[in-house]
Amino acid sequence: MNRHDPAAGSAPPFEPSGAEPSRVAAIGPGAPVLAFDVGGTDIKSALFTAEGTALGLRRTPTPVVAGDRTAAVIDALEALADNLRATYADVVPQSVGLVVPGIVDATAGVGVIATNMGWRNAPLRDLAAARLGLPVAFEHDVSAASWAERMLGGARGYDDAVVLVIGTGIAGALLIGGVPYTAAGYAGEIGHSPIADGPLCVCGARGCLEAVASAGAIARRYFEATGIEPQGAKDVIARAMTGDAAAAEIWNSALDALTLSLAQLTAVFAPQAIVIGGGLSRAGGALFDELRTRLRERLSFHRIPKLVAAELSGNAGLLGAALRGRELA
Amino acid sequence: MNRHDPAAGSAPPFEPSGAEPSRVAAIGPGAPVLAFDVGGTDIKSALFTAEGTALGLRRTPTPVVAGDRTAAVIDALEALADNLRATYADVVPQSVGLVVPGIVDATAGVGVIATNMGWRNAPLRDLAAARLGLPVAFEHDVSAASWAERMLGGARGYDDAVVLVIGTGIAGALLIGGVPYTAAGYAGEIGHSPIADGPLCVCGARGCLEAVASAGAIARRYFEATGIEPQGAKDVIARAMTGDAAAAEIWNSALDALTLSLAQLTAVFAPQAIVIGGGLSRAGGALFDELRTRLRERLSFHRIPKLVAAELSGNAGLLGAALRGRELA
Repeated sequence: MNRHDPAAGSAPPFEPSGAEPSRVAAIGPGAPVLAFDVGGTDIKSALFTAEGTALGLRRTPTPVVAGDRTAAVIDALEALADNLRATYADVVPQSVGLVVPGIVDATAGVGVIATNMGWRNAPLRDLAAARLGLPVAFEHDVSAASWAERMLGGARGYDDAVVLVIGTGIAGALLIGGVPYTAAGYAGEIGHSPIADGPLCVCGARGCLEAVASAGAIARRYFEATGIEPQGAKDVIARAMTGDAAAAEIWNSALDALTLSLAQLTAVFAPQAIVIGGGLSRAGGALFDELRTRLRERLSFHRIPKLVAAELSGNAGLLGAALRGRELA
Repeated sequence: MNRHDPAAGSAPPFEPSGAEPSRVAAIGPGAPVLAFDVGGTDIKSALFTAEGTALGLRRTPTPVVAGDRTAAVIDALEALADNLRATYADVVPQSVGLVVPGIVDATAGVGVIATNMGWRNAPLRDLAAARLGLPVAFEHDVSAASWAERMLGGARGYDDAVVLVIGTGIAGALLIGGVPYTAAGYAGEIGHSPIADGPLCVCGARGCLEAVASAGAIARRYFEATGIEPQGAKDVIARAMTGDAAAAEIWNSALDALTLSLAQLTAVFAPQAIVIGGGLSRAGGALFDELRTRLRERLSFHRIPKLVAAELSGNAGLLGAALRGRELA
């Protein structure tokens, strides 16, 4: 299921796969820290200096092994850490931040389940700490990303906010009282909340938002409707703007589905802001202006949240890992 | 709009109007406190003793005046307080708990808006404190009710929970980390979150849960479909059970709508429990068993919350007011 796909929210369908993240925000001064954002496709890694800048930031393919990838991932983290320490010998990390996809028990340091990683109840925090010889902060990738947006990005200044990453899938995280609200790892599944009776979602439920309105779903639905393989959701949106009826219908229904979810969030949780990142957020006004207008039309007395663009999209998880690691140093 | 109807969640459509609340939980030992639960139809009031039992609990009609009812309500509170103090002269209240419907800014002590009370930005806390000569704790009625359920009722033991009151309307409140989450009064509007494209809701939005699945909506929809005035939602459910096709369709669609909302809540907020009170909760297994089954069918990897019955339904708001008032004594 896409929630267990590390790339779920953060894969940039508008960028060539494997592109180097184009912007790396600094995390500010503090102890040097190693940061890892482990996904099903690749591992992002970097060494953050005392000034807070990232050294050696790279994406490497996540090791492909059948079944449980825990051991292979720990091996990969060790190799990456050794390489960073050797390359930047004068920057001595004091701690590690490690974020992973799936259901994550941050308190216990356990990856509870992540379908595309194959693990179940994997004690990743302790395994990494033993192998790297440093204290490890361990968290869910999107929760860490929301923390980075809160500290450094689009969610700055909002105590109660939703961070939504719309890419191949749709991932979400809640910030409540200025800190991530995780509910033992189960909160924030906005992509896997039902908005209709269909279609079936990869997660096994039906009518999930992700199955209708993710960048991946928009592209897939266009292909299914027309037999034409679009260049991602961006292409479908562009076709919708120039009179392609099938594209317009798919884009319109995606906007309606997103609006319904945002309206639900607004009514129940009343966030001050909804921060949207991921590939689809690069649609800019075509997305944000439409969502603002439709959200106002759908609601009445409710307090409409600000809809703002995420600022760290591609690197939010890694930056969150670094921030969390710093807390242990 | 129903959210501004004090009776929205708490009116018991299965009981004759004006019936004395059948059960009053004690709030435990502490300072004596006056408690008021102000609604559009009636005001519940009582004096709670140092042992925590309610004296003189009654419902009196809320004064009917055109426009802003603030002054008339303050007059009524004074009269009720004078009467309680005179009747139970040996119980000396140290503080007051006052809860009201609508959008409530508990921090500022202000009733921001409540359509059926006619007020806008009414400084109710300070007005009541000046008139009653005691410190006043001021809160939203359903938020206070959720606090009472958390301390004394069905939400005991759950840090993260939703309290849902399904009566004439549908009111809700979130408990996060063991305390009410209010978002400046805008959170918890589960009854006014959209679940479909229709019908139009009294709040001005369309497709609100309340317009489809409240006890009031179930009875109204049955009347609209058949021309037969049912004896409340309970009657519609009973007819559904005995083969009335129109009743079965309406009850089924109400359950589907409730399930969709609970599924959304589960995916995004992942509460440990959803506590359901109000008239419809008296349908018992016909409601709870159906919701449990349908919720499991709608979701996949999600953590399914416990669905439990509220325990204080009719008096939760008043008990919450008393508990909040005690905090000031």
